[in-house]
Amino acid sequence: MKRNLLLTPGPTQLPARICQVLGEPIIHHRTPQFQGVLKEVTEGLQYVFQTKNDVLILTSSGTGGMEAAVSNFLSPHDQVIVLEGGKFGERWTELCQMYGIKAHVIKVPWGKAGAVSDIKKILGAQKEIKALFVTLVETSTGVTTDVRAIGEALSGTNVILVVDAISGLGAVELRTDEWNVDVVVAGSQKGLMLPPGLAFVSVSPKAWALAEKSTCPKYYFHLKAAKKAAQKTDTPFTPAIGIIMALNESLLLIKNEGIEKLWARYARLAQGTRAAARAMGLSLYADPACASHAVTAIQVPSGIDGEKLTKIMRDTYGVTIAGGQEELKGKIVRICQMGCVDEFDILTGIACLEKVLHEMGHQFTLGSGLAAAQKIYNQK
Amino acid sequence: MKRNLLLTPGPTQLPARICQVLGEPIIHHRTPQFQGVLKEVTEGLQYVFQTKNDVLILTSSGTGGMEAAVSNFLSPHDQVIVLEGGKFGERWTELCQMYGIKAHVIKVPWGKAGAVSDIKKILGAQKEIKALFVTLVETSTGVTTDVRAIGEALSGTNVILVVDAISGLGAVELRTDEWNVDVVVAGSQKGLMLPPGLAFVSVSPKAWALAEKSTCPKYYFHLKAAKKAAQKTDTPFTPAIGIIMALNESLLLIKNEGIEKLWARYARLAQGTRAAARAMGLSLYADPACASHAVTAIQVPSGIDGEKLTKIMRDTYGVTIAGGQEELKGKIVRICQMGCVDEFDILTGIACLEKVLHEMGHQFTLGSGLAAAQKIYNQK
Repeated sequence: MKRNLLLTPGPTQLPARICQVLGEPIIHHRTPQFQGVLKEVTEGLQYVFQTKNDVLILTSSGTGGMEAAVSNFLSPHDQVIVLEGGKFGERWTELCQMYGIKAHVIKVPWGKAGAVSDIKKILGAQKEIKALFVTLVETSTGVTTDVRAIGEALSGTNVILVVDAISGLGAVELRTDEWNVDVVVAGSQKGLMLPPGLAFVSVSPKAWALAEKSTCPKYYFHLKAAKKAAQKTDTPFTPAIGIIMALNESLLLIKNEGIEKLWARYARLAQGTRAAARAMGLSLYADPACASHAVTAIQVPSGIDGEKLTKIMRDTYGVTIAGGQEELKGKIVRICQMGCVDEFDILTGIACLEKVLHEMGHQFTLGSGLAAAQKIYNQK
Repeated sequence: MKRNLLLTPGPTQLPARICQVLGEPIIHHRTPQFQGVLKEVTEGLQYVFQTKNDVLILTSSGTGGMEAAVSNFLSPHDQVIVLEGGKFGERWTELCQMYGIKAHVIKVPWGKAGAVSDIKKILGAQKEIKALFVTLVETSTGVTTDVRAIGEALSGTNVILVVDAISGLGAVELRTDEWNVDVVVAGSQKGLMLPPGLAFVSVSPKAWALAEKSTCPKYYFHLKAAKKAAQKTDTPFTPAIGIIMALNESLLLIKNEGIEKLWARYARLAQGTRAAARAMGLSLYADPACASHAVTAIQVPSGIDGEKLTKIMRDTYGVTIAGGQEELKGKIVRICQMGCVDEFDILTGIACLEKVLHEMGHQFTLGSGLAAAQKIYNQK
């Protein structure tokens, strides 16, 4: 009888309709029925990515898409810039190292956003830079990168802009074409409200041109092969059929609500979470100037064990939020506003956080977090 | 109201219980609940693989597991042997080429099995061979490779034996440890009766030793990282949670029936399919000495369009079987005996094949195929 509310930044909750589709008998992928779905989801993804570029579907989690974005456009000894402000920014650096690519790493303090001026400095000094890797929403810290400003800074250069939008696509504003983004990587288990198992990669003509010269080995994640298959409404290898069938439903839900309305909805939800945290005497982890709407990182008060907090919320009350990762383990909690969540879900999450913090001895007025969020959610 | 019977060699039909689990709300992967499942499925996979070796779970289709088996154990310029008797054997060769590995390819005529003597000849002449790549069931031709004999031939050498068991695991006999198989690659959508989206790789200590020297780049498919995570009952990246939950059910079904009983059941089903084909005046494609129990390839009679045949079966009668691939397009049909199929499913497939062949003008006694299979299925 216990509630099972997932407020984690991936996987996010599945809408009931998505669960239904996932439970249906499987169909074969080389049939007109599945080809029709592939065509529809590709168009739907282009809408969510806000792009006319190719959007390719890979059967893997998001990291597979990130690897594809490194191995398909670059070659050993190429030079790139990585804007690294958390665990997922570090992943770009690790991927580049694995392929023998020289990464100029801009280390951004966790919880802060990178500065365009730092990027321009490296670009000014290094004329051979081929790509810039950034993270739209750094899930580990709850920071959103100003991709629009970075895209402007790169416009007219030969550098491709590669964005890890695994956390964030569909949840925070991203205008691939308008913002000059060449490669966007996303995953199924965040804003798209699906189980993990699919990655998506959009590729601009500028990035395709670079792919022609890439010598890194790749087979399963070979994007040119994926594009060739996609032109025949096919995939090079057996895809995760079930999740693609469900993707079609999730894209329909997104299209029906409208992507801009969704962005606004998540922004409002996050505003409520942040107001609640402050009202409960908690500090927010991310710099307010760059706090993400997709995931809110809240500092655990001193004297309270953050790991125990999330464990009690989950095991006693059935409300799952995320703790901190790596250096933030036990020090923050993260509440996700992405996907199939509404204000009542967030209020439930806040109520449970209040309840357990109260049990654990944090001094604050019970109900103050709920009231603060409720005010935000009922503003005209 | 139309039937939807899948007799294709991947995806195979999903048992109703698997569909139910796939339709359940998702849980988070970093929870004791999911860790319990990960532990159980790993043990269950070891039973199906018949091994005490590590079995690692990758979120990808089977080809991702094949790439892992190349990039994790070898380095550029290493020498290997590939036994290549169909489309999937060719994939090993392509993967080796991509990573700069020198493959000595033994070209086996399609429909025939490779000879151990050919392998021994190369091993005698080339002392630097590091690995031998074979295909347990070549899905494109319906041939099973004698992995036991090959394992014996390699025993005591430094060569690792790598088996693509994507088609076949759980359906045809494979005894990883007893047969000296070092690396086995499998996928979720065949004998394991799940949607596509997971690959599995078992690794022997002999193969792990080789992994220490491998210099091929790999990140998403880095097996040492997967092993390290598995030791903490975790995965390096977000796994396909939903399919892993369903895997737990499918492994329970397999364990309850018993793997040897399953192998015998599929052998009997295949015997029925073959008897039916012969009774209908059709020729079998694979050499009877090596015809697979997992998938039966049947030659389409001259004058009949094989592509039209499978299309009518599927679109008019709701029975999906596979056609031929590449050079066999239109020339064979393939009926799968893997996964959640019983004799009544196979009889339905035969009935539909009879019906459409009759409509298309093939001369034979209607019901002869059904009667021949029925006799096999009712032998004591």
